[in-house]
Amino acid sequence: MTKTLGLALLGAGRMAHVYGPKIAAHPDLRLVRVYNHRMAGAQAACDAYGGSPSDDLAVTLADPGVDAVVIATPSNTHLEYITAAAEAGKPIYCEKPLELTMDRTRASLDVLARHPVPFMLGFNRRFDPDNAALRAAVQAGEIGKLTFLMSWSREPSPPPIDYVRGSGGYFIDATIHDIDLLCWIAGERPVEVQAAASCLFDPQIGAEGDADATMTTLKFPSSALAHVNNSRQCAYGFDQRLEAFGTRGMVQTGNHRDDPLVRWTGDVTEARAPLKHFFLERYDASFHHALDAFRAALEGGTAPEPSADDGRAALAIALAAAESSRTGQALRPDYG
Amino acid sequence: MTKTLGLALLGAGRMAHVYGPKIAAHPDLRLVRVYNHRMAGAQAACDAYGGSPSDDLAVTLADPGVDAVVIATPSNTHLEYITAAAEAGKPIYCEKPLELTMDRTRASLDVLARHPVPFMLGFNRRFDPDNAALRAAVQAGEIGKLTFLMSWSREPSPPPIDYVRGSGGYFIDATIHDIDLLCWIAGERPVEVQAAASCLFDPQIGAEGDADATMTTLKFPSSALAHVNNSRQCAYGFDQRLEAFGTRGMVQTGNHRDDPLVRWTGDVTEARAPLKHFFLERYDASFHHALDAFRAALEGGTAPEPSADDGRAALAIALAAAESSRTGQALRPDYG
Amino acid sequence: MTKTLGLALLGAGRMAHVYGPKIAAHPDLRLVRVYNHRMAGAQAACDAYGGSPSDDLAVTLADPGVDAVVIATPSNTHLEYITAAAEAGKPIYCEKPLELTMDRTRASLDVLARHPVPFMLGFNRRFDPDNAALRAAVQAGEIGKLTFLMSWSREPSPPPIDYVRGSGGYFIDATIHDIDLLCWIAGERPVEVQAAASCLFDPQIGAEGDADATMTTLKFPSSALAHVNNSRQCAYGFDQRLEAFGTRGMVQTGNHRDDPLVRWTGDVTEARAPLKHFFLERYDASFHHALDAFRAALEGGTAPEPSADDGRAALAIALAAAESSRTGQALRPDYG
Amino acid sequence: MTKTLGLALLGAGRMAHVYGPKIAAHPDLRLVRVYNHRMAGAQAACDAYGGSPSDDLAVTLADPGVDAVVIATPSNTHLEYITAAAEAGKPIYCEKPLELTMDRTRASLDVLARHPVPFMLGFNRRFDPDNAALRAAVQAGEIGKLTFLMSWSREPSPPPIDYVRGSGGYFIDATIHDIDLLCWIAGERPVEVQAAASCLFDPQIGAEGDADATMTTLKFPSSALAHVNNSRQCAYGFDQRLEAFGTRGMVQTGNHRDDPLVRWTGDVTEARAPLKHFFLERYDASFHHALDAFRAALEGGTAPEPSADDGRAALAIALAAAESSRTGQALRPDYG
Repeated sequence: MTKTLGLALLGAGRMAHVYGPKIAAHPDLRLVRVYNHRMAGAQAACDAYGGSPSDDLAVTLADPGVDAVVIATPSNTHLEYITAAAEAGKPIYCEKPLELTMDRTRASLDVLARHPVPFMLGFNRRFDPDNAALRAAVQAGEIGKLTFLMSWSREPSPPPIDYVRGSGGYFIDATIHDIDLLCWIAGERPVEVQAAASCLFDPQIGAEGDADATMTTLKFPSSALAHVNNSRQCAYGFDQRLEAFGTRGMVQTGNHRDDPLVRWTGDVTEARAPLKHFFLERYDASFHHALDAFRAALEGGTAPEPSADDGRAALAIALAAAESSRTGQALRPDYG
Repeated sequence: MTKTLGLALLGAGRMAHVYGPKIAAHPDLRLVRVYNHRMAGAQAACDAYGGSPSDDLAVTLADPGVDAVVIATPSNTHLEYITAAAEAGKPIYCEKPLELTMDRTRASLDVLARHPVPFMLGFNRRFDPDNAALRAAVQAGEIGKLTFLMSWSREPSPPPIDYVRGSGGYFIDATIHDIDLLCWIAGERPVEVQAAASCLFDPQIGAEGDADATMTTLKFPSSALAHVNNSRQCAYGFDQRLEAFGTRGMVQTGNHRDDPLVRWTGDVTEARAPLKHFFLERYDASFHHALDAFRAALEGGTAPEPSADDGRAALAIALAAAESSRTGQALRPDYG
Repeated sequence: MTKTLGLALLGAGRMAHVYGPKIAAHPDLRLVRVYNHRMAGAQAACDAYGGSPSDDLAVTLADPGVDAVVIATPSNTHLEYITAAAEAGKPIYCEKPLELTMDRTRASLDVLARHPVPFMLGFNRRFDPDNAALRAAVQAGEIGKLTFLMSWSREPSPPPIDYVRGSGGYFIDATIHDIDLLCWIAGERPVEVQAAASCLFDPQIGAEGDADATMTTLKFPSSALAHVNNSRQCAYGFDQRLEAFGTRGMVQTGNHRDDPLVRWTGDVTEARAPLKHFFLERYDASFHHALDAFRAALEGGTAPEPSADDGRAALAIALAAAESSRTGQALRPDYG
Repeated sequence: MTKTLGLALLGAGRMAHVYGPKIAAHPDLRLVRVYNHRMAGAQAACDAYGGSPSDDLAVTLADPGVDAVVIATPSNTHLEYITAAAEAGKPIYCEKPLELTMDRTRASLDVLARHPVPFMLGFNRRFDPDNAALRAAVQAGEIGKLTFLMSWSREPSPPPIDYVRGSGGYFIDATIHDIDLLCWIAGERPVEVQAAASCLFDPQIGAEGDADATMTTLKFPSSALAHVNNSRQCAYGFDQRLEAFGTRGMVQTGNHRDDPLVRWTGDVTEARAPLKHFFLERYDASFHHALDAFRAALEGGTAPEPSADDGRAALAIALAAAESSRTGQALRPDYG
């Protein structure tokens, strides 16, 4: 019989409001506590998703009803919360990225080495059924030896400029998702990374020294090559596609829409509706599946995945891409 | 705040095992009782989905925890259970068809006229999001004035011959679904029905005087025409499609699959996986939505739909199709 | 070495202007004569496609350079031209339909029995590569035993009312194409025909007692069933599709467009362009292939197909459909 | 009235046998001479496509019936033939690439500067209707400002190793096609090129120091980015796709097949046939269109395109890609 897992949600911002409703709706998860440094935010989250609010982290982590924590605070604070939760012996589900710098990422891994609580990083796209089906087909050898992997991730519209400023840059904020997905599908980590970056949609992003349109190339130890295609704007919704090409053929995933109809009018034929708007709509189920995988790992006593080391690798690759986009030089990611 | 609705499930056969898990999984429905004429069947259903078993209908209906009944007994017994439930003042959700003959169908409507409990007929395909989207597009005038409606329903493999014998014939058992759907989409009922029937897959079905491959044509008062394409066998799964064509264009629904990948190999390109196997897989959600619509109508005090009169009309049309397939004469359905 | 075939084109109307350019462009055909009862029309055709004009049929047929004739006169005059050409011993390519009544059709076959010149009827859709590929797949047993055949033919807009008046009615004018195609694919001729007809697009057509939207059902000796879906208007172009369904699967043909792009904008995704406008655009190649098949049959000494008997059968079926649409009774076509 | 253009075909190898039949079939082109350094090859080509053979270049070029030349000799000999033809004052159609090195490419341009005969380079893919439609849509602003261009070119199987040895390397031999196409669509030439190269299909190719799987990234002055995806093997045929993404949407071209059917069986649904095998099949029409554009430019007195300068640019970019794939450094192509 499945035991209900009591969770403390750390943070009350955008991602907390992604996880809150998923926790509330899961039959085997229960939101016990919401911690936020400002009480009003914690209270609002509890009003919506249940649990008791707190602005005291120690009190939150000391609650015996808290079986594990979900860290949904700003990315550049993950180290502190990982440290506190690990020291309190609580299993951790941490939203991606692990941290924004390699130093703080390594520090997080050090903490987890000293306090080896179960840890899972929220690369939720691994839990999307389409992405998982493509990986399964590749790993089962359906396309023979893997040659090319391609990932498209184009967002509907640029985020607010304040978000951009705190994001660590487009490669760290967004490309990191594709990077983790591609490494997971390929079953290996790249030995070389090249990237090109432009600002084509929102001049404010360029003024911040960031990009909103990038192409990233990965070369894997097997010599397979991967391409990532990222845009901060997409006129027709959230464009999410994968293509894996190998010695025996190709498998692809397609896009998702709410409206199922095919339309034929005077202007167009076989037309489909615009895509699901953004990640909340497109990956709604995968957040659920990710939390469920965390729960199942804790229940089964197995190590959750994606691991903290997956997070370190993804950041190292994203940082290499960012640097390559500035210098033009292909780089070997510094996984150390 | 939504109130939980206590349900008695009547029957413990195939359809009861369709509704049982849907009731158990619905947050606002509770299975209170399962009635079956043999206690062992009732017990098995309760073991799986909850509630107390009974082989006594009066006891079942007298249970104050039973707010409404779901009739999932054999089609040719619906009249008796409708009568008992209506006399007991319990709202009724009844699996389609209403009954297998017009006499017993009319008798059911008479009972409901005398005991006007809320009644909903389980034409669940109306609650499929794809079908509903196509109807909404038609009703919104997206394709102008409706000219042609086409419905494909091809089952993966012929049912057991015992099922065929008790089914009332292919038009009554299966085409009736398409008929209800098409009338609901068109917003009118046909004035003329033609049909052609063949036995092409299972000679046993032909030996019973029944068909396993039919084409039915409906003519509506607006002069719009409809075509139904039914097969008891389909090599690639449960083929379910709709096409609505009008003065300004066409809308179509497509098929559903579990496997989302598009495959390119040496043999084929852009290949999709086989279709969802059969109605349980394809219309899983629509059973849930149908029960939820029943619940919402009871809570809101509105008349549930599809109504008993919808059931009478669908049967009249299906009987006309069956007779037309034997005589070759187009018939006006006897809606009286 | 292929010998150039000298042709006389009889007629200078719409269909003559379809065949004229095809003859002129064919490397092994030469337009030697154009006959028309009014010289000006013949002259105009010769100006465009070559050859000498004449308003004297006897002179035209007596020209030793005329190896064969192409009859493109009004449908209700075919008998006279077939008679004259057959008596002159000239092989005949005759635009469909053979004639508009069974009496005149039988008379045409009698003439050809007495003067057995090679004769080919211009059901050009048999020569469309898509249609031919579907037939080949069916005949090769790809889909097992054939169960259902479906043909869509929806025209972009209603013809001028004068055309309608001389057309013999929608079934004779248009459905006859689908009928010939379906019989050719199935390899058999129906034993029963049902049809329903409406006027939904152009009230003038209804005022003439004709229909502009029809559904026709054919039952073949094998018990396979066929559906024809005909409309005189189609908002998105000339909708031409086939679907063959059997015990082992299904094959379909799709529509053709001039614009090859797939478009994704804010409104629609995976959108294709409108279809080729009408039969001249869609079946451009099949007119060429049909003439070439005629030429090859003459050169090879084989009997051209479709035969005059195919024309008789198609008309008998179309007439049965027309009558069935009036009486509601399924009919056995009178092939006698 | 169009004047017939008399052509001398230089070369009797693989590409000569591509151009020979296209010239023979074109109504306004005539093959007058075939030159080859070995008479037997010239004779064989003339036997197949017409014209008089010769192993004497001067005699060939002096023939007054020769209005222009088509150079289809090995790529590393183009300079000599361009020189001879230009000195003889003959307009030149030259198969791509212009030459294999920048030195010889520049020398070719010098020759053409001194002897300014009309010159066209055979980047035939510009003349493919699908590619041209995509360019037209981009240039018409259909997708707003261009952001990303992507080109897939995957060949069915690796060429013979002797071909590889003389090809100049994969970037020069094949990627150059995509490069020219992308520059032509974008209307600009890249300021930066990155590439990654692997040998994944044929170890012999790797042993020669060449690659059979590459990804190339271009950055244009407008900041638009482009990706080229090249493979020497493709299990399902010759995979040729383009995708252009901009601020207002996306346009794509799809693949071509000979078999038009969509198949639904027990294994797959909506399956299409394998792709056209290779460039001869896929670009059959574009060779014709390219020769016709050459003819039309000569007739109209306009400068043919693609120009020799387009050839120089494409080679410069391809060389930069090749070098970048070795050093990992993004490079500015040396257009000088």
